[in-house]
Amino acid sequence: MSPEFALSPEQRRGVYAAIYGRRDVRHFRPDPVPPSVLARLLDAAHHAPSVGFMQPWDFILIADRALRARVHELFLAERARAAETFPEPRRSQYLAYKLEGILDAPLNVCVTCDLARGGVVLGRRSMPDTDVYSACLAIQNFWLAARAEGVGVGWVSILCPDQLSALLGLPPTVVPVAYLCVGYPEAFADRPLLEATGWRERLSLDRLVHYERWGGTPTGDWAAVAAAVCERAPFEPPRGGDCAPSPA
Amino acid sequence: MSPEFALSPEQRRGVYAAIYGRRDVRHFRPDPVPPSVLARLLDAAHHAPSVGFMQPWDFILIADRALRARVHELFLAERARAAETFPEPRRSQYLAYKLEGILDAPLNVCVTCDLARGGVVLGRRSMPDTDVYSACLAIQNFWLAARAEGVGVGWVSILCPDQLSALLGLPPTVVPVAYLCVGYPEAFADRPLLEATGWRERLSLDRLVHYERWGGTPTGDWAAVAAAVCERAPFEPPRGGDCAPSPA
Repeated sequence: MSPEFALSPEQRRGVYAAIYGRRDVRHFRPDPVPPSVLARLLDAAHHAPSVGFMQPWDFILIADRALRARVHELFLAERARAAETFPEPRRSQYLAYKLEGILDAPLNVCVTCDLARGGVVLGRRSMPDTDVYSACLAIQNFWLAARAEGVGVGWVSILCPDQLSALLGLPPTVVPVAYLCVGYPEAFADRPLLEATGWRERLSLDRLVHYERWGGTPTGDWAAVAAAVCERAPFEPPRGGDCAPSPA
Repeated sequence: MSPEFALSPEQRRGVYAAIYGRRDVRHFRPDPVPPSVLARLLDAAHHAPSVGFMQPWDFILIADRALRARVHELFLAERARAAETFPEPRRSQYLAYKLEGILDAPLNVCVTCDLARGGVVLGRRSMPDTDVYSACLAIQNFWLAARAEGVGVGWVSILCPDQLSALLGLPPTVVPVAYLCVGYPEAFADRPLLEATGWRERLSLDRLVHYERWGGTPTGDWAAVAAAVCERAPFEPPRGGDCAPSPA
């Protein structure tokens, strides 16, 4: 069945290929991303949904090596602080991971959220954080468009937001949401680094799906959905984790 | 040029078609989403990036009409409260908008974030909200995969999170991030409702791109990027807003 507004099978395959093939990239080639490609990624991000059409995002493009070196210093300091939260042998494993490509990638992009953009925003009263959520949706658009273009993106969250804001000169109402390393990757790995190296396992999807309420089991018509969640659908790649019955 | 890992042109076109053709849908047909399609959307969401591979999301699937009626009552109460924040004529315009499809859509999905999943999470110390950010990235995967399948999604943010948590029986460490209406749409509009009806304009992308620091202008090599941001790239549809020079 192909509903009226579905994309063609090959285009649909492209969407799933971007979703499943996307990785957090930390190993980059030095080749620059062409301006036309970068513009497409930014425009894709700009077409994310946003609460009340707020469009609270901005994009700071950073190539200057001295500036990136300062960001990298902030990263190293935060990484050292974070290492203390892990007991051995996790601490050593954590410190051995390459978790960023700030200096390797030819481009860094800071995506921000302007908390005050446009005054009173429709739909934001009950859930005020939907402004930052909107910026996250833009980031995922950027990430998936990048994967489609063969461009790698890595998100560095091991940075102190206040230090980053000061370094980039952000106004008081603007917060950094993501600091991204962007460039052509050496490879797109089959699996996330933390999965492949045994830091954490991929959870089994069926344990994350609830029916009608938290912890609700798939009774009645839901049984067919629960079965489909456990089957391999046409556009799906193999996935980690056996599908087990939902916990009672 | 087609870099080594880029998707094929047709697959790439699919990614951009999903990004540009996605809408916040409020008018649904009653036909159910087949289990195999729903499973693909959930699995796409589950393959979003997450901080420290935390995978903090859960998905509560809701079809029960009585339950949806209670959510709809919560929506109406919040909408009434929010209406007071707009002076006329905006208040009447706000109240005239159809902002949800809770009862029309055959399926509602609440996407949550478990703030305590898996203990200490790698990469979350400096930016603790990256757990909720991860859930947002999963939501955008779901939304784009849905667009590819011809399925509409509408995000209802006019709900009190505490009331929703109580209604769905969420544990204390789990917060609702999005309440989604899901089903086959009557149409995918060309433009967002709030843009088409003059509530807000789409911002011009070039005003949202900064170079090297907040407010930085495109000097040197950045001139080519700034020009590309203003040009129509091959995969782009027409966009609203003329491209104007960046403010000084």
